[in-house]
Amino acid sequence: MDERLQKQLDFILEIDKEKNIFRQTHLSGHGRNENDAEHAWHMAIMAYLLQEYSNEKIDVARVMLMCLIHDVVEIDAGDTYAYDAEGLKTQKAREEAAKERLYSMLPEDQKANLVTIFDEFEERKTPEAKFARALDNLQPLILNNSNDGGDWKNHDVTAKQVYGRQSRTREGSEKLFEVTDKILKENIAKGNLRQE
Amino acid sequence: MDERLQKQLDFILEIDKEKNIFRQTHLSGHGRNENDAEHAWHMAIMAYLLQEYSNEKIDVARVMLMCLIHDVVEIDAGDTYAYDAEGLKTQKAREEAAKERLYSMLPEDQKANLVTIFDEFEERKTPEAKFARALDNLQPLILNNSNDGGDWKNHDVTAKQVYGRQSRTREGSEKLFEVTDKILKENIAKGNLRQE
Repeated sequence: MDERLQKQLDFILEIDKEKNIFRQTHLSGHGRNENDAEHAWHMAIMAYLLQEYSNEKIDVARVMLMCLIHDVVEIDAGDTYAYDAEGLKTQKAREEAAKERLYSMLPEDQKANLVTIFDEFEERKTPEAKFARALDNLQPLILNNSNDGGDWKNHDVTAKQVYGRQSRTREGSEKLFEVTDKILKENIAKGNLRQE
Repeated sequence: MDERLQKQLDFILEIDKEKNIFRQTHLSGHGRNENDAEHAWHMAIMAYLLQEYSNEKIDVARVMLMCLIHDVVEIDAGDTYAYDAEGLKTQKAREEAAKERLYSMLPEDQKANLVTIFDEFEERKTPEAKFARALDNLQPLILNNSNDGGDWKNHDVTAKQVYGRQSRTREGSEKLFEVTDKILKENIAKGNLRQE
């Protein structure tokens, strides 16, 4: 087999490990913890179905690819919970090292391409990255809302913390932030999310 | 919230259930059974990375979307193992009913769009569908090969049965069929896949 194809297949096998990286979010129906591959799959379909709510015109195929690969680095770096202050301090360095090791398995052109897309997601400057980030926030919110806010209760998260993170959804989609705000207010009213 | 957005969000929550539909394939590293959402995520990334090997020019974004949604019907219809002769007899009817129920949750335009893409995948006539089908075959083959053919052994599958299914990969990609043929020959030589 030629070297290019072998590298591609080696990378494809390697990223299978993303299915073993578990998040703090639980599946609907009070299910088990979700893993990164499932989260990425869900986000990519959401990108397609909700594209009309992006604040700016987007290349939806680019958003979908961004969603699909945005957590590949967690194979090495692990998942960092959104409200884990200590973990967040080292997240960038861990993910940079992971990015280098993992994407270097690919042919140079594909490495460059996927690193560019990953960096774009991280920098949150383009319309595509802003919309993808909104989905990265909304997807676990939908699951957690369906489970009576169980993930917030598990981690004793406050409304202020959640609004701090979810407010960035507004950069990608005012409409999806309206949904977010509605869900958060309902959960505060129900006592699923505590106010300080 | 307006009715259109509510329908979209209801569908998005509903398809979370795809993460509980388990396949016969096992994750690499002799892991647990894989679920449909993970399989679809993996296929969609493969579509992007391996697009250069399609026999015909393809719209890769369409292939990725096809990969992402091709197993949504299994939420109702369940997974039908590729070598389950009895299950295969009723698969079409079960999946048609599931398609109608699930996609009817969406606004009409999005229902029509996703049903068209699902039907296109099933019919295997377009270059996109042929390539997506090649990936649907190759993805579990890569995992099973990494696990010394454990899934074939579990089901006492023969080389003839596997070639019968995998030969369709050739319709989408001659190059990926070369990979398939090489993997199958190696597994026959190792005794992982029995010849009759």
